[in-house]
Amino acid sequence: MRVVCCCTAFLLLILIPKACEGGNILVYPSEGSHWINMEILLKALHSRGHNITILRSSKSWYIKDNSSYYSAFTVPVENTLDQTFITRIVAEIIEFERGALPLISFLHMSVGMFGTFIDAHKGVGAVVTAMMDDSELMRKMKDSKFDLLLADPCWGGAIILAKYLNLPLVYNVRWLIAAESHFSIAPSPLSYIPITGAGNTDKMTFLQRVTNMLLHIITQIQNDLLVRLVYQKLTDKYLGPGHDFNELMIAADIWLMRVDFVFEYPRPTMPNVVYIGGFQCKPAKPLPQHLEDFVQSSGDHGFILMSLGTFVTELPSDITNEIAAAFAKLPQKVIWKYKGNRPANLGNNTLLVDWMPQNDLLGHPKIKLFVAHGGTNGVQEAIYHGVPVVGIPVFFDQHDNLLRLKERGGGKILTLGTVDKDYNFLKAIEEVLSDPSYRANMQRLSRLHRDKPVKPLDNALFWIEFVMRHKGAAHLKAQSYRMPWYSYHSVDVVLFLAGAMLLVLLTTFYLIRCIYTGMCKRKVKHD
Amino acid sequence: MRVVCCCTAFLLLILIPKACEGGNILVYPSEGSHWINMEILLKALHSRGHNITILRSSKSWYIKDNSSYYSAFTVPVENTLDQTFITRIVAEIIEFERGALPLISFLHMSVGMFGTFIDAHKGVGAVVTAMMDDSELMRKMKDSKFDLLLADPCWGGAIILAKYLNLPLVYNVRWLIAAESHFSIAPSPLSYIPITGAGNTDKMTFLQRVTNMLLHIITQIQNDLLVRLVYQKLTDKYLGPGHDFNELMIAADIWLMRVDFVFEYPRPTMPNVVYIGGFQCKPAKPLPQHLEDFVQSSGDHGFILMSLGTFVTELPSDITNEIAAAFAKLPQKVIWKYKGNRPANLGNNTLLVDWMPQNDLLGHPKIKLFVAHGGTNGVQEAIYHGVPVVGIPVFFDQHDNLLRLKERGGGKILTLGTVDKDYNFLKAIEEVLSDPSYRANMQRLSRLHRDKPVKPLDNALFWIEFVMRHKGAAHLKAQSYRMPWYSYHSVDVVLFLAGAMLLVLLTTFYLIRCIYTGMCKRKVKHD
Repeated sequence: MRVVCCCTAFLLLILIPKACEGGNILVYPSEGSHWINMEILLKALHSRGHNITILRSSKSWYIKDNSSYYSAFTVPVENTLDQTFITRIVAEIIEFERGALPLISFLHMSVGMFGTFIDAHKGVGAVVTAMMDDSELMRKMKDSKFDLLLADPCWGGAIILAKYLNLPLVYNVRWLIAAESHFSIAPSPLSYIPITGAGNTDKMTFLQRVTNMLLHIITQIQNDLLVRLVYQKLTDKYLGPGHDFNELMIAADIWLMRVDFVFEYPRPTMPNVVYIGGFQCKPAKPLPQHLEDFVQSSGDHGFILMSLGTFVTELPSDITNEIAAAFAKLPQKVIWKYKGNRPANLGNNTLLVDWMPQNDLLGHPKIKLFVAHGGTNGVQEAIYHGVPVVGIPVFFDQHDNLLRLKERGGGKILTLGTVDKDYNFLKAIEEVLSDPSYRANMQRLSRLHRDKPVKPLDNALFWIEFVMRHKGAAHLKAQSYRMPWYSYHSVDVVLFLAGAMLLVLLTTFYLIRCIYTGMCKRKVKHD
Repeated sequence: MRVVCCCTAFLLLILIPKACEGGNILVYPSEGSHWINMEILLKALHSRGHNITILRSSKSWYIKDNSSYYSAFTVPVENTLDQTFITRIVAEIIEFERGALPLISFLHMSVGMFGTFIDAHKGVGAVVTAMMDDSELMRKMKDSKFDLLLADPCWGGAIILAKYLNLPLVYNVRWLIAAESHFSIAPSPLSYIPITGAGNTDKMTFLQRVTNMLLHIITQIQNDLLVRLVYQKLTDKYLGPGHDFNELMIAADIWLMRVDFVFEYPRPTMPNVVYIGGFQCKPAKPLPQHLEDFVQSSGDHGFILMSLGTFVTELPSDITNEIAAAFAKLPQKVIWKYKGNRPANLGNNTLLVDWMPQNDLLGHPKIKLFVAHGGTNGVQEAIYHGVPVVGIPVFFDQHDNLLRLKERGGGKILTLGTVDKDYNFLKAIEEVLSDPSYRANMQRLSRLHRDKPVKPLDNALFWIEFVMRHKGAAHLKAQSYRMPWYSYHSVDVVLFLAGAMLLVLLTTFYLIRCIYTGMCKRKVKHD
């Protein structure tokens, strides 16, 4: 096809009305990798002349109370969730995956994890209470005359605050309270839209569709009975009666969704959902000299990058030893982001680092493979740079994220608990390195991902400014969120029509019987 | 809000890989206003270096067999639908609206209209047959090695041809076979998505929701039993058994949808639907001198534009006389596109024209009002230029299109059959001219419509070229279209789960009864 043959770039000029003074944006972020990627958006907004104010708790794990590009309102709180719970959960998952935990213990662990999750929501509730009860802080917020609340709604505080301050609301979102956010706003037929955690793709067998529906029902019940209650109580307390938290949650003006349809399975969406997946990705910058020297020393073999994300900083030593031993057998160089104890058998080809410029390394010409935990950020970056992946998912959506790469031929998935068995780790790496189809598939995904009329970050900026220009985006919000479920699903109409049909049928039947009986009687008379 | 205060334009540079040689595009257009707007897209594609080949029938109403920007394959046919049927239908509608037709006659008329519609589909079927049976033509098409089939799928021929030639398929679409095209591809909850023809908005009462569902069921039955059969027969004949026409229809790569969400009510959509509503609109060019002189002579009163579209060329004389008389009473000047007999009482302020540069007139600073029939093109142009509308819908989607303006305060709707009663026409015009809210609302819609990250025409061009670059857009097509309806709607899963639940309940009940009976027996024994 001749259309692809040449890469002369063509500049399409698009006029976006520019803010001359800049807007005034209040931001309600979340922690961990969510904050890392919110920061990128905030820096871009700041560089376009907008004034940024962050809301943070005094016990925030990652969010500093000042920066060159934002000011902060700090909510004083006494307690926060202890980060070490993550290490405990990881240990339990590994035990389960090794078959060391019987099912009943797994269920116990799952309930425990869900309990931690509820505790986290209650912790957020405590921050919201501290914030809303702080009349001085609330007065300051009102006086600031913000134009917009930009929030990561994986916790629910921002939703109540936006209504309280009467501000247009824009989400930078992947998770909404306890579910993948599409499920809250767009019709989601369970027949081809996999529930996160079910390990299904968009092509399901009958039994997979059954598990998909069961998991959806369980998730819904959990959320409705436990998680949302936390926020409905806060809604009642601070907004007064008559406000439904769910309705407020869905009523956000614009949803900047951190996926795209190269990564996510195609599915129904809504007009106010804007896909910004991979907005954090950009061409690689030159590496620091010591890293550049290290990767150049790999020669033609190239190098491998390994990271298990922001949260998982250490692993049991038998696993790290196995990983180190496998790496030591490879001709490639390896850069491994790891904060735990140095494995005894670490090879000379492997460099342990506390931090690394992940995007620049993934975009380096010598990169051969990314060993990743499957967080959304990392997976989108692997797609952007076209690097094949060996995935070791830990929890949350990580297995499902990696499944999307695996199914498209871009990588393999291992189980954390069995990484050290039967040379699983080494075999997976060698297979992905030696079979060129993995790289070819990731390169194809990369071409598709990059071929968009507007870059994801520009799209995000456009829609945030759109909401400020027009004081919301009401014309893009469907009426669905205002309807009770039985009206939305037309249950009342179907029952009414079924009743009407039954009435017509019964009447017809009765009339026919009357006529028939009458005729018979007349016949008898005549006889 | 400070963000809007300044209009300094900001140039966002977007890199689109440019075709250096241009693609080879086969086009299967439709007639009337559909062709007028397809032509705009084709001229833009041609100016970007693509080679355009049109498919037309030898009896085409509007599509010429040659042009400076396309070549044509002409399919020789003997018969075509007689255009005068439109005049007949218009006359019947007017009679009905005047109450002169009793309900039974109206039903008769409706059945007749539907019959005409089926005849039209059969006519298209005859063209498809003539085309597919013409081995010389089919050989030429195959030899042309097209990269893409671009089609207006309001008739079904292109869908079969695309599969036959194995070409990626892009729709320039508003109607798909017999229904508003969203209903074919995106989940469409009938609780807030009005069926065209029901006269509902997205905010419906219970009874409106009942009529909405009834009308949907009737439309579905009509289409499934009558219209689609025409094409399924052709599919079986030319593609062989095992191909479902419906499935082929939904499997198009990209749907360039000729609406946007300033015009259309917000509703679920799909990743491969691209909204290009208003792509034909552009800033006004200077008018021809005689028109400029005419509108300038209106002074501060400005001028009114009237057009009832491409198809309705004449009206009964009592209606045209009333319209002429109303116009004659106004201080404004009037430009009226009309091909019928000149009304006897036409005022000096009114200019009858055969054709007019509608976009340039709608964008003229002196325009005050647009009297329109409510075709999608005209309504989108009124929105683009922010001109209030008095609508006189005739048929098809025109009433529903105008309803979208009326509900947003941008215009009023009259009934063609009662335009001449009680000065309805004059009163409506005077109200819209004197109340500034109509103009303010249309200007607001115009601002929303124009504020997009990519202009609709550029978006259309981008996605057509995207499909050529990547030989389709499979990654944007949901799995839904491959599923039988009972799987898509999870009917099988729900029945299975309900059955399983029943089994569990019955077993539990049976066990409890056994235990209870056992205990009772033992008790009796003990006693």
